[in-house]
Amino acid sequence: MGRVAVDAMGGDHAPRDIVRGAVAAAEADPTLEQLLVGDEGKIRGELQGREPPHGITIVHAADVIEMHESPVEALRKKADTSIVRCMKLVLEKRADAVVSAGNTGGVVAAATFLLPRLPNCRRAGIAVPFPSRTGACVLMDVGANIQCKPVHLVQYALMAREYAREICGIADPRVALLSVGGEEGKGNPLVKETFAALKAVKGLRFIGNVEGQQIFSGETDVVVCEGFVGNVILKSAEGMAEAFLHMLFKEVGDSLGETNPAGKQVLSHLKARTDYAQYGGAPLMGHEGAVFISHGRSNATAMKNAIRFADSYVGHSVNARVTEALAAVAANRDVQAILGGGT
Amino acid sequence: MGRVAVDAMGGDHAPRDIVRGAVAAAEADPTLEQLLVGDEGKIRGELQGREPPHGITIVHAADVIEMHESPVEALRKKADTSIVRCMKLVLEKRADAVVSAGNTGGVVAAATFLLPRLPNCRRAGIAVPFPSRTGACVLMDVGANIQCKPVHLVQYALMAREYAREICGIADPRVALLSVGGEEGKGNPLVKETFAALKAVKGLRFIGNVEGQQIFSGETDVVVCEGFVGNVILKSAEGMAEAFLHMLFKEVGDSLGETNPAGKQVLSHLKARTDYAQYGGAPLMGHEGAVFISHGRSNATAMKNAIRFADSYVGHSVNARVTEALAAVAANRDVQAILGGGT
Repeated sequence: MGRVAVDAMGGDHAPRDIVRGAVAAAEADPTLEQLLVGDEGKIRGELQGREPPHGITIVHAADVIEMHESPVEALRKKADTSIVRCMKLVLEKRADAVVSAGNTGGVVAAATFLLPRLPNCRRAGIAVPFPSRTGACVLMDVGANIQCKPVHLVQYALMAREYAREICGIADPRVALLSVGGEEGKGNPLVKETFAALKAVKGLRFIGNVEGQQIFSGETDVVVCEGFVGNVILKSAEGMAEAFLHMLFKEVGDSLGETNPAGKQVLSHLKARTDYAQYGGAPLMGHEGAVFISHGRSNATAMKNAIRFADSYVGHSVNARVTEALAAVAANRDVQAILGGGT
Repeated sequence: MGRVAVDAMGGDHAPRDIVRGAVAAAEADPTLEQLLVGDEGKIRGELQGREPPHGITIVHAADVIEMHESPVEALRKKADTSIVRCMKLVLEKRADAVVSAGNTGGVVAAATFLLPRLPNCRRAGIAVPFPSRTGACVLMDVGANIQCKPVHLVQYALMAREYAREICGIADPRVALLSVGGEEGKGNPLVKETFAALKAVKGLRFIGNVEGQQIFSGETDVVVCEGFVGNVILKSAEGMAEAFLHMLFKEVGDSLGETNPAGKQVLSHLKARTDYAQYGGAPLMGHEGAVFISHGRSNATAMKNAIRFADSYVGHSVNARVTEALAAVAANRDVQAILGGGT
């Protein structure tokens, strides 16, 4: 369905696990079209002399943004990085989506420089579904936009709502604002101003402020926050899940014995449910086309899942619906009066 | 050792679980002195006609701040709330510490109005130890000070370090700043300015920026952040632990059968290790005396632990060491040049 440009050079285990993930995705879906972008020699080295499987075309790019580099500087200095080449493939309509496990700042910067934003969109943001008691809760932004203005958070509410609707299949998603207390008036100035604006958005099922625990409780489908806060939550949750599993492994080992098959089964099921690899990639929403950011640690399974997710995502009409919602709010005088001007 | 004023009216299960917790603490330690503060009739009702056990004195206070009330307004309107009476007992040197499971904003406001701050201290903050792979990591602030300036974060670094040293027993605690990337220069303006100031603090083992996952990884002993961010992390971690246990219970039920004794044992051990009740109370650091904030949901066990923790805390010299550290930084011209003036 979609044509996916895959950044073969991004991530801790690139190009090995990226190439393996692309091959696994091709084997799982023979109709998938992939453009595998990066150093052709290295990509072919990973393929060990075999031709790439059906549906994969290699696109050579000479440079790569290293994890320790300043993304903006790397984009200025290096003419032909794999991530820039991926974005250009979308611009040239040769690809519908980009998947990268590279430096998040680099992916965001490349998209900012090269891909037009959707009409009325002020800033792109990254949406991530968190597992909740009743399914998933979409948190946005988790790190594209470190310092937000109220207008950005209002637009994130609209974008994340379409993600919850189209991708998670929730008919009328509940949308909440992350704060330090449930009542209106709790929070910092950013939260208070955004609260007033979200109340004025027509047709939005805005349920008010929520606290951190409600991301996981099933009480809301979307939670909106500034990129600094969302990034810290995303990474804390990851660190906590690992610490929790670590404790659990020890506990199971102590109580059941390391080799008890029932104990092992509990652990492997739980690990699968909390493993980031199951989610694959998170969309950077707000640009034309579709950009997916995978975890830097992505292994072949995570990449396969991210590529297949990107493919299915472009079959949905997320961008069209976001564009409609942003236009409606841009025309809503009550909301605009609260938000004022500015970018 | 210490004399602890206990707010009998604060918390979701007050006064019942507060009174039961105080009784349990008295039974566990006959040398403990407690002032149980609140509506005397209700407290005696919970004691069911018995006299309070040895070490407990009831101090009557007519009013209470309800969970839904604006704390500042409640303090203005109500002359004799239990939390204000607790603070006054410290002021009058009749108590060394306060423990309350009431509205956090109310406890912070009452301390702000009534208890002097330690010399040079600009803002009080709440410190909470998180379980980490190697023991504990102290996060500060988790919600007393929603919008911080760099000088507040620098002081939190010094205060949380003394907590880690005196209470957690870490000889030379590693101190880190929470951000969205490990490198210097990553983060928002608050983080960048604080980073520069912390680098200039003499004798501080400042290890730079950390990301959210490192709160749990054992790589640092102290993590400093703004109250908005810390509060969201604290509550997210709580929500996630509950969701995780929920999944785990289901998984254990499916794999081992609900009644398998080995499975039950794993769960009860894990629950104990992640239960907030084990931690009891978190100190609001920066005031004369000692103020401990317990979870609103505190049951009798959590209250007992909080009261006993408060008692042992005042036996340490945290305030004296914090005062020394704040004075040294106030006299450090390099740090002050970075922080500038202001409050």
